[in-house]
Amino acid sequence: MKNLALLGSTGSIGKQTLEVIRETSCARVRVLTAGKNITLLESQIEQFLPDFACVSSEKDAAFLSKRLRKKGIQTEVFFGDDGLVAAATLESCDTVLNALVGAAGIRSTYAAVDAKKTVALANKESLVAAGAVIIPLAQKNDVRIIPVDSEHSAIFQCLSGNNNFEKIYLTASGGPFRGKTKQELQNVTAADALRHPNWTMGAKITIDSATLMNKGLEFIEAAWLFDALPNQIEILVHPQSIIHSMVCFADGAVIAQLGAPDMRVPIQYALTFPERQLNSFPRADFFAIKNLTFEKPDYETFPCLKIAIDAFKQGGTVPAVANAANEVAVAKFLRGEIKFYDIPQLIESTINAYIKNNKTRLEILDDVLTADKIARQICETFYIER
Amino acid sequence: MKNLALLGSTGSIGKQTLEVIRETSCARVRVLTAGKNITLLESQIEQFLPDFACVSSEKDAAFLSKRLRKKGIQTEVFFGDDGLVAAATLESCDTVLNALVGAAGIRSTYAAVDAKKTVALANKESLVAAGAVIIPLAQKNDVRIIPVDSEHSAIFQCLSGNNNFEKIYLTASGGPFRGKTKQELQNVTAADALRHPNWTMGAKITIDSATLMNKGLEFIEAAWLFDALPNQIEILVHPQSIIHSMVCFADGAVIAQLGAPDMRVPIQYALTFPERQLNSFPRADFFAIKNLTFEKPDYETFPCLKIAIDAFKQGGTVPAVANAANEVAVAKFLRGEIKFYDIPQLIESTINAYIKNNKTRLEILDDVLTADKIARQICETFYIER
Repeated sequence: MKNLALLGSTGSIGKQTLEVIRETSCARVRVLTAGKNITLLESQIEQFLPDFACVSSEKDAAFLSKRLRKKGIQTEVFFGDDGLVAAATLESCDTVLNALVGAAGIRSTYAAVDAKKTVALANKESLVAAGAVIIPLAQKNDVRIIPVDSEHSAIFQCLSGNNNFEKIYLTASGGPFRGKTKQELQNVTAADALRHPNWTMGAKITIDSATLMNKGLEFIEAAWLFDALPNQIEILVHPQSIIHSMVCFADGAVIAQLGAPDMRVPIQYALTFPERQLNSFPRADFFAIKNLTFEKPDYETFPCLKIAIDAFKQGGTVPAVANAANEVAVAKFLRGEIKFYDIPQLIESTINAYIKNNKTRLEILDDVLTADKIARQICETFYIER
Repeated sequence: MKNLALLGSTGSIGKQTLEVIRETSCARVRVLTAGKNITLLESQIEQFLPDFACVSSEKDAAFLSKRLRKKGIQTEVFFGDDGLVAAATLESCDTVLNALVGAAGIRSTYAAVDAKKTVALANKESLVAAGAVIIPLAQKNDVRIIPVDSEHSAIFQCLSGNNNFEKIYLTASGGPFRGKTKQELQNVTAADALRHPNWTMGAKITIDSATLMNKGLEFIEAAWLFDALPNQIEILVHPQSIIHSMVCFADGAVIAQLGAPDMRVPIQYALTFPERQLNSFPRADFFAIKNLTFEKPDYETFPCLKIAIDAFKQGGTVPAVANAANEVAVAKFLRGEIKFYDIPQLIESTINAYIKNNKTRLEILDDVLTADKIARQICETFYIER
């Protein structure tokens, strides 16, 4: 059984990870971490009795620690970024599931790989921004990074250890705005974007799904995870989200992974790999499904997709910059401060401004963290002209 | 490189096997066998210069041998059933691809397994009729049987060595008569049935595909190959024949194998397993495909399907009897002697007559061969009342 550090336990993936563990007993939870949702974290700690926990602020840590002591629970509570790194590298854990949201997860992934932990990776930003340092480190340390993202888990399952592939078909639901025109999307709101047809996810990733930035980030993640060239990854819009992705091998055989859209399945696989363990989650019902369709992605209506892919092709810290700018832009969109198409515009403007004044060389993790910081500053200060 | 005995080289699978070998050079052809198509066999021999060949009759063997000698070709020519068994067990071969049609292939598969050859199996009747003796022998001899049938190759690829499956989805195109009613099919002819929508195959298997007997035989083959219980195999009508079959694992993840309907891909995989080798065969184009659909099989309109599955459930020599009766009935249908629904009626009547007067115990290969012979006699003599 795995000894698990679960980073980001109060988010969507974190909660579903605990459901999987409740269902299958496939891991012993040694660490739980959260940002500000202390109430939920406390109840998770009561159930799973981890050795350690971590929250964002020192004050919350002290508050939580006191409450736990009163209940006779011995869990030690860390805080802040250093607390997260400590949580990702503890002696008692062999596996780290990183379900942190956004660039905040990069340092933890790096630290876990550096400490030779198996990493179950739900934080795609780690590879988007820092794949160039994390992947070589994982190879050097003989550390396995098992994807949790449904598409990447699908590809990982399809490859089944055989990396002699010709092409990866990265499927995309198309998001809530599939089939719409640019004109129709000018004035959509965050509330419109948050109605995702197939997957229940956090707010940030749901907006990314609406702009297709999410697919762009996944494209970059797939390239790093599977050592694929950009022209070996084909994005396939598949609105039913039943095929989670596919791989075409050298002989023309295509292997696909399918199932009901349920994140618990890839989460479980990341924790039980290379075994598969029985669960009672709903199965795909092909007679009910009836019909699977495919379309080309609409790069015109969803410019973020090309922006992300181009950023990957430029390499260095450019993907980190694109990702940081996107995080800032999405936050602005969620607060109602900018419009839908301001998101790609802000990302592009940030990349251009960054490249003008900064080197894009990426040699060590600090290059990524610095680029991330600068990009956020640039993006925050942009004024949107109407 | 494999040293290959190709049994049935002038049939549809045989010819495509030689195409694969021409394309990929994945095997050295040591043996070619044919029935009566001496002209094609001779030209195949000239190209591949096997050590041995085999034909049905002694006369053809002598004729062919003489012609080859004149051309300075040293290939030795065997004949008859004993020649086939010799061809399947030669010292110089490590692999036997059995592409013989019908129950005529059973003895060769058994002999190859007995001689510890790897068997690439396109002759499904071997397992349908004699799975109960061939599978234990293969296990005892540590012999691998690699399926060539597209569905079974798909399942084999999906399992990828992990037999912890919950369910097999055996896909079926539904054949040329999918969607028709029993009424509409009363008077269809062999010519109607020979127009298969997706696959180019021999006449016998195309009729089996029209009656769905083929899917019934595949059901039995899958049960033997993958040690599946009848309730673990679900038949899924999928008219596009793009998904070649699927497997659902214990955790609910479904793995599917897909591709253009091209028998050369599973043939090649059987010859290169566990490797995959580059070829120039057309790839599946998902943007062109657009749409994959699923339906339940129509057991009412296609009674052969249930007859085959029930025969498997009865066990012993009953599947051998069902298969033999089907071969006789299909031959009669192809000759225009009986009508479409006489096929299932003949099979059922033969099974009933056989069970009434014979034991169904299956302990040794001879039990199968005897049952096959008796069933043919019974079926040949049935008079169809109108």
